[in-house]
Amino acid sequence: MSKKVHNFSAGPAILPAEVIKEAAQGALDFNNIGMSILEISHRSKDFIDVMEEARSLVKELMGFGSEYQVLFLGGGASMQFAMVPANLLVTGGTAAYVNTGVWASKAIKEAKGIGNINVIASSEDKKFSYVPKGYTIPTDANYLHITSNNTIYGTQQHQFDKSPIPVVCDMSSDIFSRRMDFSKFDLIYAGAQKNMGAAGATMVVVKESILGKTGRKMFSMLDYQVHIKGESMYNTPPVFSIYVSLLTLKWLKKNGGLAWIEKINDEKAKLMYDEIDRNSLFTGTCAKEDRSKMNACFLLKKPELEETFNKMWKDAGVSGIKGHRDVGGYRASMYNALTIDSVKALVDTMKEFEKKYADSKVTA
Amino acid sequence: MSKKVHNFSAGPAILPAEVIKEAAQGALDFNNIGMSILEISHRSKDFIDVMEEARSLVKELMGFGSEYQVLFLGGGASMQFAMVPANLLVTGGTAAYVNTGVWASKAIKEAKGIGNINVIASSEDKKFSYVPKGYTIPTDANYLHITSNNTIYGTQQHQFDKSPIPVVCDMSSDIFSRRMDFSKFDLIYAGAQKNMGAAGATMVVVKESILGKTGRKMFSMLDYQVHIKGESMYNTPPVFSIYVSLLTLKWLKKNGGLAWIEKINDEKAKLMYDEIDRNSLFTGTCAKEDRSKMNACFLLKKPELEETFNKMWKDAGVSGIKGHRDVGGYRASMYNALTIDSVKALVDTMKEFEKKYADSKVTA
Repeated sequence: MSKKVHNFSAGPAILPAEVIKEAAQGALDFNNIGMSILEISHRSKDFIDVMEEARSLVKELMGFGSEYQVLFLGGGASMQFAMVPANLLVTGGTAAYVNTGVWASKAIKEAKGIGNINVIASSEDKKFSYVPKGYTIPTDANYLHITSNNTIYGTQQHQFDKSPIPVVCDMSSDIFSRRMDFSKFDLIYAGAQKNMGAAGATMVVVKESILGKTGRKMFSMLDYQVHIKGESMYNTPPVFSIYVSLLTLKWLKKNGGLAWIEKINDEKAKLMYDEIDRNSLFTGTCAKEDRSKMNACFLLKKPELEETFNKMWKDAGVSGIKGHRDVGGYRASMYNALTIDSVKALVDTMKEFEKKYADSKVTA
Repeated sequence: MSKKVHNFSAGPAILPAEVIKEAAQGALDFNNIGMSILEISHRSKDFIDVMEEARSLVKELMGFGSEYQVLFLGGGASMQFAMVPANLLVTGGTAAYVNTGVWASKAIKEAKGIGNINVIASSEDKKFSYVPKGYTIPTDANYLHITSNNTIYGTQQHQFDKSPIPVVCDMSSDIFSRRMDFSKFDLIYAGAQKNMGAAGATMVVVKESILGKTGRKMFSMLDYQVHIKGESMYNTPPVFSIYVSLLTLKWLKKNGGLAWIEKINDEKAKLMYDEIDRNSLFTGTCAKEDRSKMNACFLLKKPELEETFNKMWKDAGVSGIKGHRDVGGYRASMYNALTIDSVKALVDTMKEFEKKYADSKVTA
């Protein structure tokens, strides 16, 4: 093992150390059966147990009963941008979307390919630096689509109103990061590779009663009802990615579930944003009330010091805080598995950087 | 590690021992960077190198030049049943399909969902126990779809004629198992989980010039041209599954490529089928000239001895030879990574079984 890395990657992202260890062991010899989990049948009892426990833990952590179904599908959240309208948008009907950034825009673009889309609110006017509020949800739309956390801009929706129509939420970048009243949602989807596991699997939780109403013919692989009938194994699922998700869900439950992780995430976010606000060399990029507890975006006030700062955080073992090209600057992604020690390492580097260079005219 | 297992699983299937070891190490600490391959960005240089080497090795092993593009997508071969007609079937046009079993039938069903399908040949009349030959490929169809190996029935196509129209081939269960004139194919797809890697990734090789002719609007995730433009990273790809594929492709190349593996696969198949034909207690299920070198299907002539035989092969460390419910009996899947020693272990068990029970009226 090389030296300790503080992994702030925006996704695929850091996983708990014990999950990594157990996943690697499963890749070598799974359940002590003498075979890797990579080379056993997905119809074997060993893997069916993995799938069933993962599906069941999702429901348990969210407090869902039998009216919701959990699927682990391949293809990524981008595939959900297509599957959601294919399964929910009635021919001739309309769906309502809130545009909070690049990913929401992609979801809108895909949905427009097959029906009428009403973008009822957008924060594009201010480069997606806030979350729209106070809009009216049209009661005649088939569903409302929102994005709970916007990785690129570092914004997060903190309040969710009761909706008169089914609510679909892309939770890819803040799934299982906080307690929520999940009953406000009818369909939740999330790529596994941020808070839940490894790239290659996408979790979908759907209230079964909202399905089967469009009359639309579609490919089997796009049809939630086909996957539900197949118990999330209509075809060979992304076995290893699902196993990593299971290990992460077990880690979460064992340590105290969403209440436990929410407290830690609150502490990490407070530490990070307090420093961004205090430090004379940095400034946050988005509306304070909409700041994401997962992704903190900030800019350097003296761009001429960029290389100096970059060298400092790299020397401190910090990795992956370069901002997305749409925002620039820095983005510290603090997903569930990132420890507060890693945030401290970054904050300490920012403090040291300020001490050395705040009054300096020299770029080192 | 528990005792040696002879893994004849039909898929997900056995992988080379060194691939398993290296994959597990990458899951623990990749390239000695202090992070798992599960938690690094797919846009990191470390992973882009994986993707590019995998794509390049596929072309090298198949002898393809720049007119072909290689993609590693999520969703499984079942997603290709949809993507192929979506990308190649012109509105109002017709596609020709050969029906050689359950998987070919599923491909036909999906394609019928969006256009006219002409099933030009089928072996359904004899429970898919042979591969249709001598049919005429219609020159006015948009493409011909065939399945090179039929896992469930143990049949394999050994000769491929030159076609007047683009040929699409599902090679999920015999990809990279033999030398072929790959230039006869315009689109090849294969789920990774049999001969190439771990479940969760599907390889597509496509001659770019056959794309973009349908005028059909489709979801971005279904569009080969979108994935080609994104260099197989339009969205977050199934990172770990692709890494396992790369390791397997490197293993194949290092040892001598397709000529090397073909020789081994021929030896294994000969050993297996010679025993099936010789042993008085077993019989093969399909036409001899169409026998698959990947999956050997055979029946027990005295069904009353089933439990006895099952106990014997399990005791010998053999795993995964229960036949598919559509055929019954046994299926020995002998993918690339299965060693000849494993085939010998099974064959020896069959010999011993015959010696003990051929003349017995007792079911033990």
